[in-house]
Amino acid sequence: MRILIVGASGTIGKEIKKELEKEHEIICAGRNGADVTVDITSPDSIKKMYEQVGKIDAVVNAAGGATFASVSELTPELNEKGIESKLKGQINLVLLGLNNVNDNGSFTLTTGIMMDDPIPQGASAAMANGGVKSFVKASSIEMPRGIRINSVSPNAVEESWERLEPFFLGFEPVPAHRVALAFKKSVCGAQTGQNYEVY
Amino acid sequence: MRILIVGASGTIGKEIKKELEKEHEIICAGRNGADVTVDITSPDSIKKMYEQVGKIDAVVNAAGGATFASVSELTPELNEKGIESKLKGQINLVLLGLNNVNDNGSFTLTTGIMMDDPIPQGASAAMANGGVKSFVKASSIEMPRGIRINSVSPNAVEESWERLEPFFLGFEPVPAHRVALAFKKSVCGAQTGQNYEVY
Repeated sequence: MRILIVGASGTIGKEIKKELEKEHEIICAGRNGADVTVDITSPDSIKKMYEQVGKIDAVVNAAGGATFASVSELTPELNEKGIESKLKGQINLVLLGLNNVNDNGSFTLTTGIMMDDPIPQGASAAMANGGVKSFVKASSIEMPRGIRINSVSPNAVEESWERLEPFFLGFEPVPAHRVALAFKKSVCGAQTGQNYEVY
Repeated sequence: MRILIVGASGTIGKEIKKELEKEHEIICAGRNGADVTVDITSPDSIKKMYEQVGKIDAVVNAAGGATFASVSELTPELNEKGIESKLKGQINLVLLGLNNVNDNGSFTLTTGIMMDDPIPQGASAAMANGGVKSFVKASSIEMPRGIRINSVSPNAVEESWERLEPFFLGFEPVPAHRVALAFKKSVCGAQTGQNYEVY
């Protein structure tokens, strides 16, 4: 398969690449240092990426962020990062990429544990995660040409634990490799409309 | 209690008002014909509404829309209605209204069945619903001053069935009054972080 990985240089993206490149052709996209440059908050940038990349069998996204702030500190403006990046960025990768994905291909997006197991300061990220999860489930029933769509919901990962622990006190981090396996299951399997929890 | 109902003139809003006005003071907000005018897609309009309304014990929202389109027809532009209205509109009612809600008050937002039981053309609405549900769950753990937050997820309602049936074939609509009771449970009860399914 020819697989586009967006956010391939991140902690999880790197593991996905390592797992999939054994048997597949990988194209890496990201804000810098990748085969193709893309800023997922810009629909124009996404369109240009797909023009450069051409036809692919799978799109995997491991990019997207949101602001961490308590609900008392969160403003409509601070909430925009989650809206533009983690939510709309991921959904626009699907809406603008449908014609580039071959028959029976797939999209795999990223959600996250804080929508199911909330943490302080995580409301904006949870919002984006929940929006992506529901979009995946709903859009899967009418994807054209046998195209599948799933999401992977990672726990905090061991590789980022030093930075993340203050936000995830009492959580048990998972190795990024386990998260990468869920992406592999989505890309190489036959399920659709799923949100794979790696908790 | 002093309760602000946004979208009080809609099919569900009217039933919420009927149920709550028996024992509470109700202020109706909406795009037109209400006590206070508000367009929830505009943060400025929401701020003005709260300035006019002053302190309240509960905010109930029954407003917010999204575009119905198949995932093949959905564009980033068409998806904006769901983002701006049903998703951000509702979340901004919370973020901009926190200081107007009295201690131990509440917010109650609206999601919808299509995030759990997807329908064709419902992906954008499902996205908004899922985002609101996860925001409610996550923000509930750090609401200040005992303020609670819940959402109500209605099925299609009998009162709109003639218009809605083509989208919800095989669904069993519920009376809007049952949906209104879930709002009452949220406003008058003590639970928080819940999404009440009225299916």
